[in-house]
Amino acid sequence: MEKTRRIVIALGGNALGHTLPEQAAAVKVTARAVVDLIEDGHQVVVAHGNGPQVGIINNAMGALQKEDPHQGFTPLSVCGAMSQAYIGYDLQNAFREELLDRGICNIPVCTIVTQVEVDPADPAFENPAKPIGKFMTEEEARTYAAQTGYPVREDAGRGWRRYVASPKPKHIIEAGAVRHLMEDGHLIICCGGGGIPVYRTEKNHLKGAAAVIDKDFASELLAEQLEADLLIILTAVEKVAVNFRKENERQLSSLTPAEARSYIAEGQFAPGSMLPKVEAAVKFAESKPGRQALITLLEKARDGIAGRTGTVIHA
Amino acid sequence: MEKTRRIVIALGGNALGHTLPEQAAAVKVTARAVVDLIEDGHQVVVAHGNGPQVGIINNAMGALQKEDPHQGFTPLSVCGAMSQAYIGYDLQNAFREELLDRGICNIPVCTIVTQVEVDPADPAFENPAKPIGKFMTEEEARTYAAQTGYPVREDAGRGWRRYVASPKPKHIIEAGAVRHLMEDGHLIICCGGGGIPVYRTEKNHLKGAAAVIDKDFASELLAEQLEADLLIILTAVEKVAVNFRKENERQLSSLTPAEARSYIAEGQFAPGSMLPKVEAAVKFAESKPGRQALITLLEKARDGIAGRTGTVIHA
Repeated sequence: MEKTRRIVIALGGNALGHTLPEQAAAVKVTARAVVDLIEDGHQVVVAHGNGPQVGIINNAMGALQKEDPHQGFTPLSVCGAMSQAYIGYDLQNAFREELLDRGICNIPVCTIVTQVEVDPADPAFENPAKPIGKFMTEEEARTYAAQTGYPVREDAGRGWRRYVASPKPKHIIEAGAVRHLMEDGHLIICCGGGGIPVYRTEKNHLKGAAAVIDKDFASELLAEQLEADLLIILTAVEKVAVNFRKENERQLSSLTPAEARSYIAEGQFAPGSMLPKVEAAVKFAESKPGRQALITLLEKARDGIAGRTGTVIHA
Repeated sequence: MEKTRRIVIALGGNALGHTLPEQAAAVKVTARAVVDLIEDGHQVVVAHGNGPQVGIINNAMGALQKEDPHQGFTPLSVCGAMSQAYIGYDLQNAFREELLDRGICNIPVCTIVTQVEVDPADPAFENPAKPIGKFMTEEEARTYAAQTGYPVREDAGRGWRRYVASPKPKHIIEAGAVRHLMEDGHLIICCGGGGIPVYRTEKNHLKGAAAVIDKDFASELLAEQLEADLLIILTAVEKVAVNFRKENERQLSSLTPAEARSYIAEGQFAPGSMLPKVEAAVKFAESKPGRQALITLLEKARDGIAGRTGTVIHA
């Protein structure tokens, strides 16, 4: 048996599906991969994205407000909080069932509602870069922007959308509870959607921000706060590649921070897609000697930890 | 200083307001009362209702489905899960802020998404007794019932509503995590809305039930599973009364299970209101020697623990 490690897994929101039936199917596949790692003796904490899900909830609260203006406006941070339970409830059940099905009865599972502090001076707030919610025509979008004051833009030829800021995470408020339960042998789901973004206003008050934190950066910070050995960022490809989808595509089995930075400078990794994953991986690999990150497919996580596939980022 | 106790507080969903601004104001008042008890050295866990909130979320998901039928139907159990984070996020922030404002820096706060097992053979499923969601005209309600198959009834002269089952809680799935954190000095919010009602289908699977668990009964079970000394059920009156709002109204400072049963037989307590509170209090008081329940106003909790007010139920 290999050395057991403390692992944070970052799961994509898109990998969780766009509807509840899709989510119910997706969490089963996720559960098999995660419980494999627990069976191998690793300590595992699961963080996840919420792109489609927070969009659904945001649209629902908007649709309610149209029907019943008395309800008022639901901030994005509250929609983000709801998405953590919307996803966590399904994930915790799937993990629980998979553990019990394999006869592992001593690993309780739960979801912790997680807030992540951001800096209101983060330049991301001046340049909202993350599209959320439903697609609109240009006319609808301009009317929406005039009514709400939210920035709208065309999203990759697919229609117009609201754009929100994606500030960097500074501190995970509930990391102490996560760590305490993890060290007691619990399997914890947290930092859903990159965490509920909050910032300090008065001395001790935390206020929700109209933002979405990148789940890869939040997972990286979580891994640091938990003193994890390994950050696994799950994605839609088995390995990170340069010259992606070109004739001279080359898949990378390992990557040092220096190599990664040089590829980033060449524009090898797509913003909003592989770029934040590589950046988060590099940040974690450099945060303390011995720490590694692994980028691979969900179903290859076990092989990746064993060094048989995926892209390992290490200093 | 008095003996410190392990306390479960059951907070009413209505006491949390019907909109987000109302909730933001309500949690501040709640936080002062809860932190008073922590300052007195008690171990505190907070459970809460979600009547208005799960109704809002259920309506929002319904409004979205009307706009975009592709989204499909969101089960009540999933709405209940979302309501736990919708409320927990505000509560955990208010508690955190109140603790820090008083210089108490060693009590981390978090919300745990909580599932509560019910028995699918519970007779409550044959007689849906709890109204949820928005009020309809009789015609709207009959159309809704024909379309969805859900039972509808007239609700106390206020209009027609959907009715759901309110089965008894059998087991709190995540109580182990709550207990572990509580014993490590954390302030935990859990069992929101009486918990997400689930039942076992296959061997290890938990399936959401279209039901709402009474938060007083769920809090009682939580108090048992946590081996609490005291269950505090907060309500809109300072003391339980017999001949309530009549000329011969008599407020009770203490109540034995035998006395309570005799008043219940007389029909002294309103179903869906004081009756479940008294029943839950009696159940807890009888669950083990030395256990007590207290029914009072939020702002009288501290005085109630000191024996100065409220209704104490003890064997």
